[in-house]
Amino acid sequence: MDLLHQFEQAEAAADDGADRPLEEIPGRDELQQKLEELHPADVAYILESLPLEERLTVWQLVGTERDGEVLLEVSDAVRETLLADMDNQEIIAAATNLDADELADLAPDLPRDVVRELMDTLDAQQRERLKSALSFDDDQVGALMDFDMVTIRDDVTLEVVSRYLRRFETLPDHTDKLFVVDLQGVLKGVLSIKKLLVTPDDQLVADVMATDPVIFYPGDDAGEAVQAFERYNLVSAPVVDSKGKLQGRLTIEQMLDYIREENETDALNAAGLVEEEDIFASVWKSVRNRWAWLAINLCTALVASRVIGLFEHSIEQLVALAALMPIVAGVGGNSGNQTITLIVRGIATGQVQMAHGERLLRKEAGVALINGLVWGAVLGVIAWFLYFNIPLSIVLMSAMVLNMMLAAFMGVVIPLLRMRMGGDPALGSSVLITAITDSGGFFIFLGLATLFLL
Amino acid sequence: MDLLHQFEQAEAAADDGADRPLEEIPGRDELQQKLEELHPADVAYILESLPLEERLTVWQLVGTERDGEVLLEVSDAVRETLLADMDNQEIIAAATNLDADELADLAPDLPRDVVRELMDTLDAQQRERLKSALSFDDDQVGALMDFDMVTIRDDVTLEVVSRYLRRFETLPDHTDKLFVVDLQGVLKGVLSIKKLLVTPDDQLVADVMATDPVIFYPGDDAGEAVQAFERYNLVSAPVVDSKGKLQGRLTIEQMLDYIREENETDALNAAGLVEEEDIFASVWKSVRNRWAWLAINLCTALVASRVIGLFEHSIEQLVALAALMPIVAGVGGNSGNQTITLIVRGIATGQVQMAHGERLLRKEAGVALINGLVWGAVLGVIAWFLYFNIPLSIVLMSAMVLNMMLAAFMGVVIPLLRMRMGGDPALGSSVLITAITDSGGFFIFLGLATLFLL
Repeated sequence: MDLLHQFEQAEAAADDGADRPLEEIPGRDELQQKLEELHPADVAYILESLPLEERLTVWQLVGTERDGEVLLEVSDAVRETLLADMDNQEIIAAATNLDADELADLAPDLPRDVVRELMDTLDAQQRERLKSALSFDDDQVGALMDFDMVTIRDDVTLEVVSRYLRRFETLPDHTDKLFVVDLQGVLKGVLSIKKLLVTPDDQLVADVMATDPVIFYPGDDAGEAVQAFERYNLVSAPVVDSKGKLQGRLTIEQMLDYIREENETDALNAAGLVEEEDIFASVWKSVRNRWAWLAINLCTALVASRVIGLFEHSIEQLVALAALMPIVAGVGGNSGNQTITLIVRGIATGQVQMAHGERLLRKEAGVALINGLVWGAVLGVIAWFLYFNIPLSIVLMSAMVLNMMLAAFMGVVIPLLRMRMGGDPALGSSVLITAITDSGGFFIFLGLATLFLL
Repeated sequence: MDLLHQFEQAEAAADDGADRPLEEIPGRDELQQKLEELHPADVAYILESLPLEERLTVWQLVGTERDGEVLLEVSDAVRETLLADMDNQEIIAAATNLDADELADLAPDLPRDVVRELMDTLDAQQRERLKSALSFDDDQVGALMDFDMVTIRDDVTLEVVSRYLRRFETLPDHTDKLFVVDLQGVLKGVLSIKKLLVTPDDQLVADVMATDPVIFYPGDDAGEAVQAFERYNLVSAPVVDSKGKLQGRLTIEQMLDYIREENETDALNAAGLVEEEDIFASVWKSVRNRWAWLAINLCTALVASRVIGLFEHSIEQLVALAALMPIVAGVGGNSGNQTITLIVRGIATGQVQMAHGERLLRKEAGVALINGLVWGAVLGVIAWFLYFNIPLSIVLMSAMVLNMMLAAFMGVVIPLLRMRMGGDPALGSSVLITAITDSGGFFIFLGLATLFLL
């Protein structure tokens, strides 16, 4: 139960750190001792939970030989603050304990001259791997794979395999299968550990191995790899080049990290943030992280404002319009977000295709019509109690219906068009649909009012 | 490469189905044949990608003995449509091939009398397990664990263990460790398969096993289990009761499902949807799924509208206020969503505690002040070009600053208060903060204008 206990210790330590200055806690040496006993992931967690000054104090207590592992575990934002506190020699010392695939994760955050220096310390194979990993995008299999593979030949018996494995000190994490390759390193199949354990050991690898495993190429999209891992319950899978030569492997661990980061990105973009933010970041850093979406929002708000500006004369004559117009815009925005979210998710899972466009349009239009009529009627009645103006209530209800239909139409068409044009339908979809339903809602409501009420 | 190929076939089949009527495709028998070759997850994917009529046609082609597996794989919304098409006998026939933990996943969607009948077909142990699984919440470990464990004793050699394993036809998926129990079933440790493979086989299990594995209790929170799986790179872990007796195990597969569902729920709630929606659901079903959040939105919009109503007299005198007020509300909403999202996420990961409140307030207030001054000034200049009214520009800028400060304050305080009161800080956080910044923004801007401009 040691690890679970450590987990709790880590949380307790994080609590402590936040409540009182570091020196008062268990004493420096005792703390250093405690940190050494913790899993690197727990040390990372403590560092993330501490404000900057205390974070750096604790960071100095972490032994150099563990610095690399901890740097891999902390979030990007916190990693930056830790690296900023280290000189080049310290960084190089920390990085020498890492594998090529781990270095590749770290490299983008390191100073250029440090990366060059690190390259020189690697042997030829490691250098090749690092270069290869750096040549892929973050969302390609090539950037996620590691090189901790156990390979075997197919012309030996399982007994030989077992004896071979016994010569290892330990097997790589997530080794649920061995990769069977020929002399040229071409993948011929995989031997699952489960199979190895239940099969009589006088059999040949060639007779027992699976010859049709799920494989990936370094250029494959990581999102699709994640789907395959989920669908086929994989723990690890081989990555091969176009000639079938084994290049590395993907593990569920990297898939989990990828899912976590994707969800993070989606949630942050939806909230108008560019990237993950260290919760204790400086005010200036936070301002930089937030200004882009605020600027976009300001532009769309300005457009909506100008639409209202077109009808200032109408508002002067019937000021109730000013009070009612945000309702039309707001409810339309909510409704449009519902539609676009479903369509974007359907596209992401592959369940929505261009061919479905018309059917989806009909359905969403139907939903919008019903919702618009129901809520428009509710609102019309409320408006009547407020202003005793039946034509105004009718205009309000009509504007609700029309704006929700607009929202439904745009909610289906925009993501489909962006998919056809090869873009990412998710990015900024909420901002886009809200901009349309705001300006559209104001235009429809004030326009109808101008036509029929004045 | 077979599975990857199947994957593509599945997508192709789904494409086909959408483009032309089912009868024209490969012919019924051929399609049935194809379906039989597919992984249940791929069949589920095809079913999800088809409109209702075609979906049911394909569903009838799936063999009864595979119905259960496919039902487990499809999304909740699609499962409902499939079950609606089956009579009780068919459901029971499909369910008899499932384990207790799988039945538990299905049971909430089944008619009550079917569940009762299914209970009767189970043996005592399976029935106990099903009842136990059903007694836990969806987000508790007890509802997620399965019972596919391989247990061994600690007083035997590794050679005996290897011989024991060879008597299995196959080992359960995700078996990366064996559970070591005593005669009473109390967990004494775990033997990782990796360890088993690299250790000389004359050693005793007791000398080789890990005595401090990460363990879980059935009442544990699933979210925390997910964090532990990620932190310690687990593939499987034992679940024990309060006396240490082995009850079941968690695997990375269930953790992945849980992560997926949690993210789904968050994304849907953020977009104003109650639950996942079958993309081809009927209009009426969709209306039901969406009305709750629309109603909430309507209420908050009404409040904002009444705030504007208070100032109708001011708007009549200076109609530019009507055009400018949505900008103050909108940018404040964006800014407030940025803050509350970061705080909610920080609380979810445990990095934000009550003790941090004051520090976070200071930081967020600083960010809001800078952003408010910068964007307020930009906006003030633009407003001047539109209305040539310097006092109006100053009021606009002041309102921007104040509303963004309000957003920052509420964005920190609301989630912390909800955490202290034991609620879920994430639920509806965006709706709540937007309601505040809308009404607050209108009140601040129109109030200042009434005081200083009229």
